[in-house]
Amino acid sequence: MGEFDLIRRYFTRPAGTGPRRALLGVGDDCALLDMGGTLAISTDMLVEGRHFLPTADPEALGHKCLAVNLSDLAAMGAEPYAFTLSIALPATRAGDDAWLDAFARGLFALADRHGCELVGGDTTAGPLVVSIAILGRVDATQALRRSGACPGDDIYVSGTVGDAALALEALCGRVALAAPALRSARERLDRPEPRIALGLALRGIASSAIDLSDGLAGDLRHVLAASGVGAEVDVEHVPVSDTLADQPRERRIACALAGGDDYELCFTAAAPSAAAVAQAARGAGVPVTRIGRIVAAGAAVWRWEGQPLAGDLRGYDHFA
Amino acid sequence: MGEFDLIRRYFTRPAGTGPRRALLGVGDDCALLDMGGTLAISTDMLVEGRHFLPTADPEALGHKCLAVNLSDLAAMGAEPYAFTLSIALPATRAGDDAWLDAFARGLFALADRHGCELVGGDTTAGPLVVSIAILGRVDATQALRRSGACPGDDIYVSGTVGDAALALEALCGRVALAAPALRSARERLDRPEPRIALGLALRGIASSAIDLSDGLAGDLRHVLAASGVGAEVDVEHVPVSDTLADQPRERRIACALAGGDDYELCFTAAAPSAAAVAQAARGAGVPVTRIGRIVAAGAAVWRWEGQPLAGDLRGYDHFA
Repeated sequence: MGEFDLIRRYFTRPAGTGPRRALLGVGDDCALLDMGGTLAISTDMLVEGRHFLPTADPEALGHKCLAVNLSDLAAMGAEPYAFTLSIALPATRAGDDAWLDAFARGLFALADRHGCELVGGDTTAGPLVVSIAILGRVDATQALRRSGACPGDDIYVSGTVGDAALALEALCGRVALAAPALRSARERLDRPEPRIALGLALRGIASSAIDLSDGLAGDLRHVLAASGVGAEVDVEHVPVSDTLADQPRERRIACALAGGDDYELCFTAAAPSAAAVAQAARGAGVPVTRIGRIVAAGAAVWRWEGQPLAGDLRGYDHFA
Repeated sequence: MGEFDLIRRYFTRPAGTGPRRALLGVGDDCALLDMGGTLAISTDMLVEGRHFLPTADPEALGHKCLAVNLSDLAAMGAEPYAFTLSIALPATRAGDDAWLDAFARGLFALADRHGCELVGGDTTAGPLVVSIAILGRVDATQALRRSGACPGDDIYVSGTVGDAALALEALCGRVALAAPALRSARERLDRPEPRIALGLALRGIASSAIDLSDGLAGDLRHVLAASGVGAEVDVEHVPVSDTLADQPRERRIACALAGGDDYELCFTAAAPSAAAVAQAARGAGVPVTRIGRIVAAGAAVWRWEGQPLAGDLRGYDHFA
């Protein structure tokens, strides 16, 4: 059983069961709650040895733990507001002043940039695990849901994807990269930049959005399922760094589509909105690239210069 | 460095630093946020081998993970609204249908009783760790803060305390209990009942409140520090079960004051409110017992029949 099956099977209630509080519940980047204004909430947990290496720089780790949560707000078009931090620490870390200080520095530097207050948390002994719950504000009618993609919409990706996966391959010794290439790829793995400004700018323009945490192939699949549509993607247009473009085609495709840990936005917009999308991207200072279009139904078709790719592309799954 | 030092040192911002969003931030049972209505938020993380034994019954574990979070809402006088669930699962658990099904059953049974919707979460592979963030609603002017205790106020405890600690002692083989006594003590350890109805009934009556998670001695200390007051506690009046009352005095005191995992409420109220407190308790169906009174300043004085207790009583600290 995979991660998403597990969630569906054990943690999704049948219709009519249990209390209903949310405007939008489990299954999008955030839930939406009407608390007077509309609250967006999301949570992400990072486990040492799984989401980050034991040798991870603690300042980068503090940044990343919050960044992956902020990224969910970005994908909803929500404005960051506050967060809670739960952290389990081995005794060696709990007594390591330099490590904790650097972790907190990385965390708060990013929090301050986005006006997001730490309002509570829990600290306990245990294996190193960081769990953040993040709150944002968004007008419910403007929130960028996964379910709004329509046939004919263009599909876009922000920035470039695949460098985080390439860096992990290099750190695990499966790819050799020159030092400058490794440095820039590793920066993407260690210090993802949540696309908050872009998410806010896309309100009223994008028809759907998701953040890329598990890899474009898997994450786009969630949008298609939520919207009841299909997609045709021109993989040669999926934006990658020069470093990744220099890699063999199979590695380029694997990193860009199935790698994960990108924290870029994948979103859709009606074709007549192309100019508005370009303006939003300029305003947010983030390039966006059109990679394909939404079609009426069926799965995603991944093509390289018109030829369908062989093989089954899947996103990252913790239990697959 | 202890748990609370660690929080103060690394995760508490100096005044004037960083964004300020909360009406009430780090340091109470919940934070309070004005989102139109006032939102109460809290988070607690439970780690296998630390907060529960690997042999824990999964249905009871699902109950307890949510109960300890609901208990923080109770201590704020907040009405449960929604929660997120982050869970790291070893492969053995992720593939164990009976375990997951029972965990979810225990979780949702308690959530449904309190009208609290699961609105999101994160599922990952890793050591067994459960992190819940809970949201409630409360009028900010009525919230039961830790900081409101005044000299002359009575100090109360709900239910009985110490049985969870006694059960843990028995399970670890340090105390022998007869089967019925072990069963009832273990029920308190495994299935704490959050005092939501009592917390709601105490709005406008209690001057301060905290839930007892780390032991009465340590938790009352938080109230005294937040309120800038002292306390005199008559330890022989601290309510305990018949099972714990039958134990030697040293064990009775250790379990009742320093044991933790009770999830009862400790609260204060002005002396003229005694009748209102009794009525609130009757309405909530939970007994409450007066255990002492707030004095002008200084630490807590713990007395047994008028004689100060020797030794330093401390609450549970994950890093002490």
